[in-house]
Amino acid sequence: MELRYPNGKVYKPQEVKNNPHLKQRIYGNRGMTLEEDINETNLYYLEQEIAVIHKKPTPVQIVNVDYPKRSAAVIKEAYFKQASTTDYNGIYKGRYIDFEAKETKNKTSFPLQNFHEHQIKHMSDCVKQDGICFVILRFSSTDEIYFLDAKHLLTFWTRKNAGGRKSISKQEVETYGHPLAIGFRPRIDYIKVIDKLYF
Amino acid sequence: MELRYPNGKVYKPQEVKNNPHLKQRIYGNRGMTLEEDINETNLYYLEQEIAVIHKKPTPVQIVNVDYPKRSAAVIKEAYFKQASTTDYNGIYKGRYIDFEAKETKNKTSFPLQNFHEHQIKHMSDCVKQDGICFVILRFSSTDEIYFLDAKHLLTFWTRKNAGGRKSISKQEVETYGHPLAIGFRPRIDYIKVIDKLYF
Repeated sequence: MELRYPNGKVYKPQEVKNNPHLKQRIYGNRGMTLEEDINETNLYYLEQEIAVIHKKPTPVQIVNVDYPKRSAAVIKEAYFKQASTTDYNGIYKGRYIDFEAKETKNKTSFPLQNFHEHQIKHMSDCVKQDGICFVILRFSSTDEIYFLDAKHLLTFWTRKNAGGRKSISKQEVETYGHPLAIGFRPRIDYIKVIDKLYF
Repeated sequence: MELRYPNGKVYKPQEVKNNPHLKQRIYGNRGMTLEEDINETNLYYLEQEIAVIHKKPTPVQIVNVDYPKRSAAVIKEAYFKQASTTDYNGIYKGRYIDFEAKETKNKTSFPLQNFHEHQIKHMSDCVKQDGICFVILRFSSTDEIYFLDAKHLLTFWTRKNAGGRKSISKQEVETYGHPLAIGFRPRIDYIKVIDKLYF
Protein backbone atom coordinates (compact mmCIF):
# COMPACT_ATOMS: atom_id res chain seq x y z
CA MET A 1 0.00 0.00 0.00
CA GLU A 2 1.36 3.42 -0.96
CA LEU A 3 0.99 6.53 1.16
CA ARG A 4 1.53 9.84 -0.63
CA TYR A 5 2.41 13.33 0.48
CA PRO A 6 0.04 16.10 -0.66
CA ASN A 7 2.48 16.86 -3.51
CA GLY A 8 2.06 13.31 -4.78
CA LYS A 9 5.48 12.05 -3.74
CA VAL A 10 5.37 8.56 -2.30
CA TYR A 11 5.86 8.47 1.47
CA LYS A 12 8.77 6.16 2.36
CA PRO A 13 8.72 4.85 5.93
CA GLN A 14 12.49 4.16 5.60
CA GLU A 15 13.15 7.89 5.91
CA VAL A 16 11.31 7.86 9.21
CA LYS A 17 13.10 4.85 10.62
CA ASN A 18 16.50 6.54 10.77
CA ASN A 19 15.28 9.86 12.05
CA PRO A 20 13.76 9.71 15.54
CA HIS A 21 12.67 13.34 15.42
CA LEU A 22 10.80 12.88 12.15
CA LYS A 23 9.28 9.65 13.40
CA GLN A 24 7.96 11.45 16.44
CA ARG A 25 6.46 14.20 14.34
CA ILE A 26 4.83 12.12 11.63
CA TYR A 27 3.54 9.32 13.84
CA GLY A 28 2.41 11.89 16.38
CA ASN A 29 0.03 13.23 13.77
CA ARG A 30 -1.54 10.01 12.66
CA GLY A 31 -1.40 7.70 15.68
CA MET A 32 1.65 6.16 17.25
CA THR A 33 0.81 2.49 17.31
CA LEU A 34 -1.41 -0.12 15.73
CA GLU A 35 -3.25 -0.39 19.05
CA GLU A 36 -3.98 3.33 19.10
CA ASP A 37 -5.19 3.24 15.51
CA ILE A 38 -7.55 0.39 16.32
CA ASN A 39 -8.80 2.05 19.50
CA GLU A 40 -9.53 5.22 17.50
CA THR A 41 -11.32 3.14 14.88
CA ASN A 42 -13.44 1.42 17.54
CA LEU A 43 -14.30 4.78 19.08
CA TYR A 44 -15.43 6.01 15.67
CA TYR A 45 -17.58 2.89 15.17
CA LEU A 46 -19.08 3.40 18.66
CA GLU A 47 -19.85 7.10 18.17
CA GLN A 48 -21.35 6.51 14.73
CA GLU A 49 -23.36 3.55 16.12
CA ILE A 50 -21.77 1.26 13.52
CA ALA A 51 -20.43 -1.37 15.93
CA VAL A 52 -19.63 -1.83 19.62
CA ILE A 53 -16.10 -3.17 19.93
CA HIS A 54 -13.75 -2.68 22.88
CA LYS A 55 -10.22 -3.64 23.80
CA LYS A 56 -10.16 -5.79 26.91
CA PRO A 57 -8.20 -4.45 29.87
CA THR A 58 -4.74 -5.92 30.48
CA PRO A 59 -5.20 -8.80 32.94
CA VAL A 60 -3.44 -8.08 36.21
CA GLN A 61 -3.10 -10.19 39.36
CA ILE A 62 -3.52 -7.75 42.23
CA VAL A 63 -1.60 -8.73 45.35
CA ASN A 64 -1.54 -5.68 47.59
CA VAL A 65 -3.79 -2.63 47.72
CA ASP A 66 -3.37 0.39 49.96
CA TYR A 67 -6.48 2.34 51.00
CA PRO A 68 -5.28 5.77 52.13
CA LYS A 69 -7.81 7.94 53.96
CA ARG A 70 -9.75 10.39 51.79
CA SER A 71 -8.15 9.24 48.54
CA ALA A 72 -8.34 6.54 45.92
CA ALA A 73 -7.11 3.00 46.54
CA VAL A 74 -3.53 2.48 45.35
CA ILE A 75 -2.44 -0.88 44.00
CA LYS A 76 1.03 -1.38 45.51
CA GLU A 77 1.87 -4.83 44.15
CA ALA A 78 0.50 -6.55 41.10
CA TYR A 79 1.69 -8.79 38.28
CA PHE A 80 0.84 -9.13 34.62
CA LYS A 81 -1.19 -12.24 33.90
CA GLN A 82 -1.42 -14.05 30.57
CA ALA A 83 -4.70 -13.26 28.83
CA SER A 84 -7.00 -16.20 28.15
CA THR A 85 -8.61 -14.57 25.13
CA THR A 86 -7.79 -12.19 22.30
CA ASP A 87 -7.59 -8.43 22.94
CA TYR A 88 -10.67 -7.16 21.09
CA ASN A 89 -14.28 -8.27 20.94
CA GLY A 90 -17.75 -6.91 20.49
CA ILE A 91 -20.79 -6.83 18.27
CA TYR A 92 -21.65 -5.78 14.72
CA LYS A 93 -25.17 -6.26 13.34
CA GLY A 94 -25.93 -8.94 15.92
CA ARG A 95 -22.82 -10.97 15.08
CA TYR A 96 -20.02 -11.62 17.52
CA ILE A 97 -16.69 -10.06 16.52
CA ASP A 98 -13.36 -11.24 17.96
CA PHE A 99 -9.84 -10.34 16.92
CA GLU A 100 -6.22 -9.84 17.80
CA ALA A 101 -3.82 -7.24 16.34
CA LYS A 102 -0.12 -7.92 15.93
CA GLU A 103 2.89 -6.26 14.33
CA THR A 104 6.18 -7.51 12.96
CA LYS A 105 9.36 -5.78 11.80
CA ASN A 106 9.97 -8.71 9.41
CA LYS A 107 9.59 -7.89 5.75
CA THR A 108 9.07 -11.29 4.19
CA SER A 109 6.97 -13.19 6.71
CA PHE A 110 4.81 -12.92 9.82
CA PRO A 111 6.25 -15.04 12.69
CA LEU A 112 3.65 -17.23 14.40
CA GLN A 113 5.42 -16.75 17.73
CA ASN A 114 3.44 -13.48 17.90
CA PHE A 115 0.51 -15.65 18.98
CA HIS A 116 0.09 -17.73 22.11
CA GLU A 117 -1.44 -21.17 22.27
CA HIS A 118 -4.35 -19.93 24.43
CA GLN A 119 -5.21 -17.20 21.92
CA ILE A 120 -5.27 -19.78 19.13
CA LYS A 121 -7.48 -22.02 21.31
CA HIS A 122 -9.82 -19.08 21.97
CA MET A 123 -10.07 -18.21 18.27
CA SER A 124 -10.75 -21.83 17.43
CA ASP A 125 -13.53 -21.91 20.07
CA CYS A 126 -15.07 -18.72 18.65
CA VAL A 127 -14.93 -20.04 15.08
CA LYS A 128 -16.81 -23.18 16.24
CA GLN A 129 -19.52 -20.89 17.69
CA ASP A 130 -19.80 -19.18 14.29
CA GLY A 131 -18.16 -15.93 15.39
CA ILE A 132 -16.48 -13.48 13.04
CA CYS A 133 -12.92 -14.07 14.10
CA PHE A 134 -9.74 -12.69 12.54
CA VAL A 135 -6.34 -11.11 13.07
CA ILE A 136 -5.06 -7.71 11.96
CA LEU A 137 -1.42 -8.07 10.90
CA ARG A 138 0.85 -5.07 10.42
CA PHE A 139 4.20 -5.16 8.64
CA SER A 140 5.71 -2.16 10.39
CA SER A 141 8.67 -1.65 8.03
CA THR A 142 6.31 -0.89 5.14
CA ASP A 143 3.24 0.05 7.21
CA GLU A 144 1.13 -2.53 5.38
CA ILE A 145 -1.87 -3.87 7.28
CA TYR A 146 -3.84 -7.02 6.47
CA PHE A 147 -7.05 -8.61 7.67
CA LEU A 148 -6.71 -12.42 7.93
CA ASP A 149 -9.64 -14.67 8.82
CA ALA A 150 -8.87 -16.87 11.85
CA LYS A 151 -9.56 -20.01 9.81
CA HIS A 152 -6.42 -19.32 7.76
CA LEU A 153 -4.38 -18.53 10.86
CA LEU A 154 -5.51 -21.84 12.39
CA THR A 155 -4.39 -23.66 9.24
CA PHE A 156 -0.94 -22.05 9.42
CA TRP A 157 -0.76 -22.85 13.13
CA THR A 158 -1.58 -26.51 12.45
CA ARG A 159 1.12 -26.58 9.76
CA LYS A 160 3.66 -25.24 12.31
CA ASN A 161 2.64 -27.84 14.91
CA ALA A 162 3.07 -30.56 12.28
CA GLY A 163 6.70 -29.48 11.85
CA GLY A 164 6.15 -26.93 9.07
CA ARG A 165 7.34 -23.34 8.86
CA LYS A 166 7.08 -21.17 11.97
CA SER A 167 5.70 -18.18 10.11
CA ILE A 168 3.19 -17.11 7.47
CA SER A 169 5.01 -15.99 4.35
CA LYS A 170 4.27 -12.47 3.12
CA GLN A 171 2.89 -13.99 -0.06
CA GLU A 172 0.48 -16.17 1.93
CA VAL A 173 -0.71 -13.11 3.85
CA GLU A 174 -1.32 -11.36 0.51
CA THR A 175 -3.12 -14.39 -0.92
CA TYR A 176 -5.40 -15.26 2.02
CA GLY A 177 -5.63 -11.84 3.66
CA HIS A 178 -7.26 -8.56 2.69
CA PRO A 179 -5.34 -5.27 2.69
CA LEU A 180 -6.57 -2.59 5.09
CA ALA A 181 -5.93 1.00 4.03
CA ILE A 182 -5.04 3.62 6.60
CA GLY A 183 -7.55 6.44 6.59
CA PHE A 184 -8.47 9.40 8.72
CA ARG A 185 -11.82 8.41 10.20
CA PRO A 186 -11.92 5.52 10.72
CA ARG A 187 -8.18 4.90 10.61
CA ILE A 188 -8.35 1.16 9.91
CA ASP A 189 -11.75 0.39 8.44
CA TYR A 190 -11.90 -3.35 9.10
CA ILE A 191 -15.72 -3.36 9.14
CA LYS A 192 -15.58 -2.78 5.39
CA VAL A 193 -13.82 -6.14 4.99
CA ILE A 194 -16.28 -7.79 7.38
CA ASP A 195 -19.17 -6.48 5.27
CA LYS A 196 -17.59 -7.94 2.15
CA LEU A 197 -16.72 -11.33 3.66
CA TYR A 198 -19.54 -12.19 6.05
CA PHE A 199 -22.69 -10.25 5.11
CA MET B 1 -36.61 -20.62 44.97
CA GLU B 2 -36.28 -23.31 47.63
CA LEU B 3 -33.08 -25.18 48.41
CA ARG B 4 -33.47 -28.42 50.34
CA TYR B 5 -31.17 -30.51 52.49
CA PRO B 6 -30.85 -34.21 51.52
CA ASN B 7 -33.42 -35.02 54.25
CA GLY B 8 -35.95 -32.77 52.51
CA LYS B 9 -35.83 -29.97 55.07
CA VAL B 10 -35.88 -26.52 53.46
CA TYR B 11 -32.54 -24.73 53.62
CA LYS B 12 -32.92 -21.31 55.28
CA PRO B 13 -30.14 -18.83 54.44
CA GLN B 14 -31.10 -16.91 57.65
CA GLU B 15 -29.47 -19.64 59.72
CA VAL B 16 -26.25 -19.13 57.82
CA LYS B 17 -26.17 -15.37 58.20
CA ASN B 18 -25.65 -15.46 61.95
CA ASN B 19 -23.13 -18.28 61.98
CA PRO B 20 -19.85 -17.44 60.23
CA HIS B 21 -18.55 -20.99 60.60
CA LEU B 22 -21.64 -22.51 58.96
CA LYS B 23 -21.56 -19.86 56.26
CA GLN B 24 -17.99 -20.78 55.48
CA ARG B 25 -18.83 -24.45 55.31
CA ILE B 26 -21.99 -24.27 53.22
CA TYR B 27 -20.86 -21.57 50.83
CA GLY B 28 -17.50 -23.30 50.53
CA ASN B 29 -19.31 -26.24 49.02
CA ARG B 30 -21.37 -24.45 46.46
CA GLY B 31 -19.45 -21.32 45.52
CA MET B 32 -18.75 -18.27 47.64
CA THR B 33 -20.01 -15.48 45.45
CA LEU B 34 -22.23 -14.78 42.50
CA GLU B 35 -19.11 -13.94 40.49
CA GLU B 36 -17.53 -17.31 41.29
CA ASP B 37 -20.74 -19.13 40.41
CA ILE B 38 -20.88 -17.36 37.05
CA ASN B 39 -17.20 -17.98 36.34
CA GLU B 40 -17.71 -21.69 37.08
CA THR B 41 -20.74 -21.70 34.81
CA ASN B 42 -18.78 -20.04 31.99
CA LEU B 43 -15.96 -22.56 32.42
CA TYR B 44 -18.49 -25.37 32.14
CA TYR B 45 -19.95 -23.83 28.94
CA LEU B 46 -16.42 -23.45 27.55
CA GLU B 47 -15.35 -27.02 28.34
CA GLN B 48 -18.58 -28.48 26.97
CA GLU B 49 -18.27 -26.25 23.86
CA ILE B 50 -21.70 -24.78 24.60
CA ALA B 51 -20.65 -21.11 24.60
CA VAL B 52 -17.52 -18.94 24.88
CA ILE B 53 -18.12 -16.32 27.56
CA HIS B 54 -15.45 -14.64 29.69
CA LYS B 55 -15.34 -12.09 32.46
CA LYS B 56 -13.34 -9.05 31.43
CA PRO B 57 -10.29 -8.24 33.54
CA THR B 58 -10.61 -5.41 36.07
CA PRO B 59 -9.46 -2.22 34.32
CA VAL B 60 -6.33 -0.83 35.95
CA GLN B 61 -4.32 2.29 35.17
CA ILE B 62 -0.70 1.23 35.50
CA VAL B 63 1.61 4.06 36.60
CA ASN B 64 4.85 2.45 37.69
CA VAL B 65 6.39 -0.92 36.83
CA ASP B 66 9.59 -2.36 38.23
CA TYR B 67 11.58 -4.79 36.07
CA PRO B 68 13.88 -6.70 38.42
CA LYS B 69 16.63 -8.77 36.80
CA ARG B 70 15.79 -12.43 36.18
CA SER B 71 12.24 -12.14 37.48
CA ALA B 72 8.79 -11.02 36.48
CA ALA B 73 7.84 -7.36 36.15
CA VAL B 74 6.22 -5.98 39.31
CA ILE B 75 3.55 -3.30 39.08
CA LYS B 76 4.42 -0.90 41.91
CA GLU B 77 1.74 1.73 41.42
CA ALA B 78 -1.62 1.40 39.73
CA TYR B 79 -5.18 2.60 40.18
CA PHE B 80 -8.59 1.11 39.57
CA LYS B 81 -10.32 2.59 36.54
CA GLN B 82 -14.04 2.66 35.88
CA ALA B 83 -15.04 0.04 33.33
CA SER B 84 -16.59 1.31 30.11
CA THR B 85 -18.56 -1.88 29.50
CA THR B 86 -20.29 -4.66 31.39
CA ASP B 87 -18.27 -7.44 33.02
CA TYR B 88 -19.16 -10.43 30.84
CA ASN B 89 -19.38 -10.99 27.12
CA GLY B 90 -18.91 -13.65 24.50
CA ILE B 91 -20.62 -15.79 21.91
CA TYR B 92 -23.37 -18.40 21.83
CA LYS B 93 -24.46 -19.95 18.50
CA GLY B 94 -23.08 -16.99 16.55
CA ARG B 95 -24.96 -14.43 18.65
CA TYR B 96 -23.24 -11.81 20.78
CA ILE B 97 -23.87 -12.20 24.53
CA ASP B 98 -23.35 -9.34 26.99
CA PHE B 99 -24.30 -9.12 30.64
CA GLU B 100 -23.65 -7.77 34.09
CA ALA B 101 -24.21 -9.56 37.41
CA LYS B 102 -25.22 -7.70 40.57
CA GLU B 103 -26.34 -8.54 44.09
CA THR B 104 -28.41 -6.75 46.71
CA LYS B 105 -29.11 -7.40 50.37
CA ASN B 106 -32.50 -5.68 49.95
CA LYS B 107 -35.49 -7.98 50.19
CA THR B 108 -38.20 -5.98 48.46
CA SER B 109 -36.43 -4.22 45.60
CA PHE B 110 -33.26 -4.05 43.52
CA PRO B 111 -31.62 -0.59 43.78
CA LEU B 112 -30.65 0.88 40.41
CA GLN B 113 -27.59 2.48 41.99
CA ASN B 114 -25.96 -0.92 41.47
CA PHE B 115 -25.52 0.16 37.84
CA HIS B 116 -23.42 2.96 36.41
CA GLU B 117 -24.48 5.29 33.62
CA HIS B 118 -21.72 3.97 31.29
CA GLN B 119 -22.88 0.37 31.79
CA ILE B 120 -26.42 1.38 30.90
CA LYS B 121 -25.10 3.23 27.84
CA HIS B 122 -23.11 0.15 26.82
CA MET B 123 -26.13 -2.14 27.20
CA SER B 124 -28.24 0.27 25.20
CA ASP B 125 -25.59 0.28 22.43
CA CYS B 126 -25.48 -3.54 22.39
CA VAL B 127 -29.29 -3.80 22.26
CA LYS B 128 -29.27 -1.49 19.21
CA GLN B 129 -26.78 -3.86 17.54
CA ASP B 130 -29.20 -6.74 18.21
CA GLY B 131 -27.07 -8.35 20.91
CA ILE B 132 -28.43 -10.67 23.59
CA CYS B 133 -28.04 -8.37 26.54
CA PHE B 134 -29.24 -8.87 30.11
CA VAL B 135 -28.46 -8.65 33.82
CA ILE B 136 -28.28 -11.40 36.41
CA LEU B 137 -29.75 -10.10 39.67
CA ARG B 138 -29.25 -11.86 42.98
CA PHE B 139 -31.24 -11.19 46.13
CA SER B 140 -28.63 -12.40 48.59
CA SER B 141 -30.88 -12.59 51.65
CA THR B 142 -33.00 -15.30 50.01
CA ASP B 143 -30.43 -16.48 47.44
CA GLU B 144 -32.90 -15.88 44.62
CA ILE B 145 -31.39 -15.20 41.20
CA TYR B 146 -33.16 -13.67 38.20
CA PHE B 147 -32.37 -13.15 34.54
CA LEU B 148 -33.66 -9.75 33.33
CA ASP B 149 -33.43 -8.67 29.69
CA ALA B 150 -31.59 -5.35 29.29
CA LYS B 151 -34.64 -3.83 27.56
CA HIS B 152 -36.55 -3.99 30.83
CA LEU B 153 -33.60 -2.61 32.80
CA LEU B 154 -33.39 0.29 30.34
CA THR B 155 -37.10 1.00 30.86
CA PHE B 156 -36.65 1.10 34.65
CA TRP B 157 -33.58 3.31 34.23
CA THR B 158 -35.56 5.75 32.08
CA ARG B 159 -38.31 5.81 34.70
CA LYS B 160 -35.71 6.69 37.37
CA ASN B 161 -34.25 9.48 35.21
CA ALA B 162 -37.77 10.83 34.71
CA GLY B 163 -38.09 11.21 38.48
CA GLY B 164 -39.59 7.78 39.21
CA ARG B 165 -38.49 5.20 41.77
CA LYS B 166 -34.77 4.53 42.15
CA SER B 167 -35.15 0.77 42.22
CA ILE B 168 -36.89 -2.16 40.54
CA SER B 169 -39.49 -3.62 42.88
CA LYS B 170 -39.16 -7.32 43.67
CA GLN B 171 -42.53 -7.86 42.04
CA GLU B 172 -41.33 -6.21 38.82
CA VAL B 173 -38.26 -8.44 38.83
CA GLU B 174 -40.56 -11.46 39.20
CA THR B 175 -42.87 -10.23 36.44
CA TYR B 176 -40.30 -9.23 33.81
CA GLY B 177 -37.44 -11.51 34.84
CA HIS B 178 -36.89 -15.25 34.72
CA PRO B 179 -35.79 -17.20 37.80
CA LEU B 180 -32.42 -18.95 37.57
CA ALA B 181 -32.05 -22.11 39.64
CA ILE B 182 -28.74 -22.92 41.34
CA GLY B 183 -27.42 -26.24 40.15
CA PHE B 184 -24.23 -28.22 40.33
CA ARG B 185 -22.91 -28.12 36.77
CA PRO B 186 -23.56 -25.56 35.50
CA ARG B 187 -24.26 -23.63 38.68
CA ILE B 188 -26.36 -20.88 37.08
CA ASP B 189 -27.67 -22.15 33.76
CA TYR B 190 -28.51 -18.84 32.10
CA ILE B 191 -28.10 -20.31 28.59
CA LYS B 192 -31.33 -22.24 29.23
CA VAL B 193 -33.18 -18.91 29.52
CA ILE B 194 -31.39 -17.56 26.44
CA ASP B 195 -32.53 -20.62 24.48
CA LYS B 196 -36.10 -20.02 25.56
CA LEU B 197 -36.15 -16.27 24.91
CA TYR B 198 -34.01 -15.71 21.81
CA PHE B 199 -33.81 -18.93 19.77
